[in-house]
Amino acid sequence: MQDVYQYIDDHRDEYLEQVRTLCRQPSISAQNIGIQETAEMVKAMLEAIDAKAEIVPIEGGNPVVYGEVGSGNRTLSFYNHYDVQPPEPLELWKSEPFAADVRDGRIWARGIADNKGNTVSRICAIDAYQKVRGALPLRVKFLIEGEEEIGSPRLERFTDEHPDLVQADGNIWESGSKDVDGTPIISLGLKGICYVELRVKSIARDLHSSLGASVPNAAWRLNWALSTLKGPDERIRIPGFYDRVIAPTDHDLEILDKLPNTEASRKQLYNIDQFVNGLSGRDLQLKEYFQPTCTICGINSGYTGPGTKTVMPAEAMAKVDFRLVIDQDPYEIRDLLRKHLDNEGFSDVEVELLSAEHPARTSTDSAIVRVVEEAHREIDGKEPVIIPTSLGTGPAYVMAHKFGIPFASSGVGHADSGAHSPNENIYVEDYVTGIKRIARIMDGFART
Amino acid sequence: MQDVYQYIDDHRDEYLEQVRTLCRQPSISAQNIGIQETAEMVKAMLEAIDAKAEIVPIEGGNPVVYGEVGSGNRTLSFYNHYDVQPPEPLELWKSEPFAADVRDGRIWARGIADNKGNTVSRICAIDAYQKVRGALPLRVKFLIEGEEEIGSPRLERFTDEHPDLVQADGNIWESGSKDVDGTPIISLGLKGICYVELRVKSIARDLHSSLGASVPNAAWRLNWALSTLKGPDERIRIPGFYDRVIAPTDHDLEILDKLPNTEASRKQLYNIDQFVNGLSGRDLQLKEYFQPTCTICGINSGYTGPGTKTVMPAEAMAKVDFRLVIDQDPYEIRDLLRKHLDNEGFSDVEVELLSAEHPARTSTDSAIVRVVEEAHREIDGKEPVIIPTSLGTGPAYVMAHKFGIPFASSGVGHADSGAHSPNENIYVEDYVTGIKRIARIMDGFART
Repeated sequence: MQDVYQYIDDHRDEYLEQVRTLCRQPSISAQNIGIQETAEMVKAMLEAIDAKAEIVPIEGGNPVVYGEVGSGNRTLSFYNHYDVQPPEPLELWKSEPFAADVRDGRIWARGIADNKGNTVSRICAIDAYQKVRGALPLRVKFLIEGEEEIGSPRLERFTDEHPDLVQADGNIWESGSKDVDGTPIISLGLKGICYVELRVKSIARDLHSSLGASVPNAAWRLNWALSTLKGPDERIRIPGFYDRVIAPTDHDLEILDKLPNTEASRKQLYNIDQFVNGLSGRDLQLKEYFQPTCTICGINSGYTGPGTKTVMPAEAMAKVDFRLVIDQDPYEIRDLLRKHLDNEGFSDVEVELLSAEHPARTSTDSAIVRVVEEAHREIDGKEPVIIPTSLGTGPAYVMAHKFGIPFASSGVGHADSGAHSPNENIYVEDYVTGIKRIARIMDGFART
Repeated sequence: MQDVYQYIDDHRDEYLEQVRTLCRQPSISAQNIGIQETAEMVKAMLEAIDAKAEIVPIEGGNPVVYGEVGSGNRTLSFYNHYDVQPPEPLELWKSEPFAADVRDGRIWARGIADNKGNTVSRICAIDAYQKVRGALPLRVKFLIEGEEEIGSPRLERFTDEHPDLVQADGNIWESGSKDVDGTPIISLGLKGICYVELRVKSIARDLHSSLGASVPNAAWRLNWALSTLKGPDERIRIPGFYDRVIAPTDHDLEILDKLPNTEASRKQLYNIDQFVNGLSGRDLQLKEYFQPTCTICGINSGYTGPGTKTVMPAEAMAKVDFRLVIDQDPYEIRDLLRKHLDNEGFSDVEVELLSAEHPARTSTDSAIVRVVEEAHREIDGKEPVIIPTSLGTGPAYVMAHKFGIPFASSGVGHADSGAHSPNENIYVEDYVTGIKRIARIMDGFART
């Protein structure tokens, strides 16, 4: 593969310009900005590597860009998305989020880590492979959606309607990163999510707080409702919540045994003295990889400006996300939450489901995982670490569980890439390495 | 007194214009708007009734307007304030808050109920009495401060430095209203307040909510800390909190026996099905008049905009007010709260005291209360109801407890006056009646 790697090194400036061009095109699904333009740009990039590409519309949503190139006994698919998070808060960015500035060896842009860097690195790997070897050794399918950052609400409809476009022998997932100490990570799963908004309205309008003795306070109602969900022991108190949680297997525990200890570096990164409840070692691993979460993402009620205002709030609102593990179901969790609140006397607390995704896992034994491992060893010169699941969420369930496609992650991010945050970035060197790794993965997977 | 009442009726338009003029002058202490101008305007109004008036500066704060007029064996003081609450939210006002519009028999203006209507009605009563009778039958002292709406932080310093200006045989408090069914209320006290801001900072900056399994969440920390303060049973859980609370006397219970039942009208006003925990009758009376409160006035953390953002908040903030009853001390309550949070494992929750006032009560047996009762009977033609205390707060402690001055309320408000809210208003008829009542109170108190 040295011939392909050499070609990639010789054309690094050209490949760098390609990803910068895509990053300069905003594509913010939450704000409906630049979606069609970006889909067309991605289609053109696929056509430039001789892929048969099309923009597949989805009723009521953003289209999927589908591409197919190469032939062979094996079919590898890439799941990516062309939409990005909103760039706000803009004032915290050190360069314009859609300028794709290069400085200090890094590319800075909204979407560069999540997920345009990975998307373009895959296209560039095919370009290099074809230029050097003439043709790909396998069939490649690109499935690049436009609604990942708003929870992929219509992806399952797309895969149901187009099973032929989805079917593959293995999949490379959108993401891929390194841990806080620089070790490459291969993730075998994604958590699910049940994201809800809780709302209380206790009185007709805000009243003087002197009525606090006798008139129901929306902020207190919400506070008490939330405190029935989880206490400082971190155990989620919704009856039935853990019923479908599967205990880690002996094989899972072996995976955990091999994980490097990054606790000290992570504590420094987050600026904390300790993890919750002093968790460490195996307990921390089990909590992070094999336990669901319940997180308050936001809460608001009453007067929150400077100084005092003696007001009793009529309304209160909280946003809560549950990250789910195999085999929890986000819709069942929503129902259990509703029932729990009713049973605890909080039927006045409204629950609205804002986002739902199933958890997904794949097996370490699959060919795609072995090939990605080999690619890391060869290209990065480092032994990758395999983690049972990402802590984050994505629509892998659709492909992994409904179509039975094994998947693995391989990407260009690092621990401080700042996905979803200001100053999102990747290292130029990681981008070039990422292109080589994809070339190596295609080459290896063709021989499985 | 018919001669004086007739004079007031004949000059009602002139008296109405006086209060509108004062209301058109903004005087927002929280925003430092129009303070000096208003103090000078009030001083001029006092001088117009031949009062010896001065603007008494307070270091670091808004001046007190002091006035003295009349002579006799008895001295009656009026406590008022010339500052008002901010008018926001402006979009909810049906007429400009500083236009003092008159329509539907009411005057609509920020400060008309709290407290400019009362201030001017007292000045007008003296004017009428003097015009008809030549001279007042007693000495009157005006103590009109400019920081009541920000918690009277420097009033005690003023009264300590100028005891001669404060000393009196009886005091008419700033406020005075009618209950929801239109019955005049005489209040024998004011609750104290301990208003705190609670703050938590758990991590360096907001993180991705996927870290919810292991990284401390500021919103949860605050939620749990708050839920240790009070549960749905409404009992405040801070050890020692109730230690100084004095049980109602037999005399207090007799006062409660005489209260009309306004529960149905009040539930309709607040748009609630029931009071907290279904309280009613004697239990509701005891809770409102003889028990302290703990009220969340505001809470904020993380993402509170539309849709989903999967963020783990680094910071959280809540504003909480405790309304205190005799003999609770706001500074002691702040200390008990701090100690309680430490004992419960929440030393990460910062406590800042934003406002502190002591509770105050006066006796039903005092001359001033009897005189106000008589005035209500004569002027309103209704038997007033005596309540043990207002549910709200004011700096009566300074005068009532440090100087031993009995006090009673008499004012021009009604149950839907909207103090501190948009569309603050009083009825023109109540304003005219209020002027007459003050004339009658001066006349009656001179003969005690």
